[in-house]
Amino acid sequence: MKATARAHTNIALIKYWGKKNQNFILPYNSSLSMTLDAFYTDTTVEFNEAFTENQFFLNDNRVNNEMATRVFDHIKKITTLLNQPNLPHFKVWSTNHVPTAAGLASSSSGFAALTAATVKAMGLELSKSELSRLARLGSGSATRSLFGGFAMWSTGNDLTSVGSAIDEHPEMDLHLLAIETNNARKKIPSRSGMQNTVETSAYYDAWVEKAKNDLDLMTYAIKQNDFELLGKVAENNAMAMHATNLAAVPSFTYFEPDTLIAMQTVQELRDNGISCYYTLDAGPNLKILTQSKNIEAIKTYFNKKLPKASIIQATFGPGIQYLS
Amino acid sequence: MKATARAHTNIALIKYWGKKNQNFILPYNSSLSMTLDAFYTDTTVEFNEAFTENQFFLNDNRVNNEMATRVFDHIKKITTLLNQPNLPHFKVWSTNHVPTAAGLASSSSGFAALTAATVKAMGLELSKSELSRLARLGSGSATRSLFGGFAMWSTGNDLTSVGSAIDEHPEMDLHLLAIETNNARKKIPSRSGMQNTVETSAYYDAWVEKAKNDLDLMTYAIKQNDFELLGKVAENNAMAMHATNLAAVPSFTYFEPDTLIAMQTVQELRDNGISCYYTLDAGPNLKILTQSKNIEAIKTYFNKKLPKASIIQATFGPGIQYLS
Repeated sequence: MKATARAHTNIALIKYWGKKNQNFILPYNSSLSMTLDAFYTDTTVEFNEAFTENQFFLNDNRVNNEMATRVFDHIKKITTLLNQPNLPHFKVWSTNHVPTAAGLASSSSGFAALTAATVKAMGLELSKSELSRLARLGSGSATRSLFGGFAMWSTGNDLTSVGSAIDEHPEMDLHLLAIETNNARKKIPSRSGMQNTVETSAYYDAWVEKAKNDLDLMTYAIKQNDFELLGKVAENNAMAMHATNLAAVPSFTYFEPDTLIAMQTVQELRDNGISCYYTLDAGPNLKILTQSKNIEAIKTYFNKKLPKASIIQATFGPGIQYLS
Repeated sequence: MKATARAHTNIALIKYWGKKNQNFILPYNSSLSMTLDAFYTDTTVEFNEAFTENQFFLNDNRVNNEMATRVFDHIKKITTLLNQPNLPHFKVWSTNHVPTAAGLASSSSGFAALTAATVKAMGLELSKSELSRLARLGSGSATRSLFGGFAMWSTGNDLTSVGSAIDEHPEMDLHLLAIETNNARKKIPSRSGMQNTVETSAYYDAWVEKAKNDLDLMTYAIKQNDFELLGKVAENNAMAMHATNLAAVPSFTYFEPDTLIAMQTVQELRDNGISCYYTLDAGPNLKILTQSKNIEAIKTYFNKKLPKASIIQATFGPGIQYLS
């Protein structure tokens, strides 16, 4: 009763920001993402009568903190929902090829891989859609990491609010450059950040409406293979998400000085005819969307403007994979 | 036919951001401000048959640019509205004791002083309210600079959208520290910035609603002499104003890296028990609201965190004054 799964993280181009149901993790708006080849999590789950306790190892280290509790709770939730109450103790080994909690949603690949490995270790076979529903109960963004290419997570109820493939093998020439200026754990976790915003921001309702419209524009851009439209909508949607936080009570922001420098640098590149756009999750590190021909020019310019930043390049990644 | 007026600039605690009528400068929401003693404009206007052309001198230099055109247009508008079409040519001498266009609304004191000096030079006497209406046609924020202490500019029509005194001699112990990190002219003038936002921001309607609610809270805070409430509402209102710009299409911001450092510094001061709040106009320079006992601690800490910033201190200033 042992299985290993690999899930890739994803970057939301239409953001998920706020739950209408905390317990079931049901979002107020549908979101859309690009699965990334360069960032992934490998997770092995083993149920074994010989084990005397549940254990979680992250990057080869035994972990016994809140994160471990979240992992254990997720596995228990899965076994309960799948009516397998009498399983033995388990061990989980997880290797994160994602900078943890620096705004590159390691929880998306983490909970997608954990869910898939757990279900397979139990000897069951579920569709990606069914796995996505289970992954959602661990982390909302994980719903999209079951799928490659462009994926969407729909708002809905416990059964319908799942991920789906928009285009698993997109034709679009699309690359992401993650500009990492701060690799510290973020000060405001996205869970509490979005919840404060749902409860207090005067702009939250307008955000939900805008996200709906942006999603329509984004799916159109994908269908038309229109990079410029995709970039513009992604950038504007991300900034509108961050705007809701400024209008929360009290106001808060994930922006840091280097975030603004990176945003300004993208604007300068555009002014010089290099087409690129940015998006930003609940953290300070900007991610740039661009196309093959511009990657080198962007890296060179960023090395000049933000010499301390590390730049990690990615393009489309695959959906869930089973390594054993 | 010569007169000199002094008007003090003001800092909006409930922001003005967007016009429902461009021609008459009628705002979507009422705003509220603190008139500041440390920043003012002295303006002399003289109508003289001996003059062969209209001239504008700013800080002792003859100016012949867009700003001069705006000054000339404003005087012509006043003489037309007051039915004095046959006045001779005029000269205007203006001295700005305000860092120009660095986010400290020099146009508020500028157009208030220009309006008052022009009307007096014409030999007329108008109420502050009538002067405020005329000043509005030059610059919206100038409506509030006719009044000292706390002043409000009401939304309304051409005759009712004027400034009024909320409390010309407030009891509140309230000081402003302007943190000047960038004295360059701002890249996006507030006029075009707010207009882009009115036309494209998904959050604009919600901003207008929020500004109404914030205004009620602010007038309550003033009546109750409640500095903490005043500070909290001012900070949140300013951030909500800036949030509308992030949601404009395309997104834009007045934030600069030093703006975020200054915001973070205020947060650190609060974490250390030093009560202070910030506000921000359409520029990068943060303004801190605080009380007497905390001024030195704030200055000392800012000198450490932002050593290159200059800090200018202000408290309540008076309404319009005639120097001759």
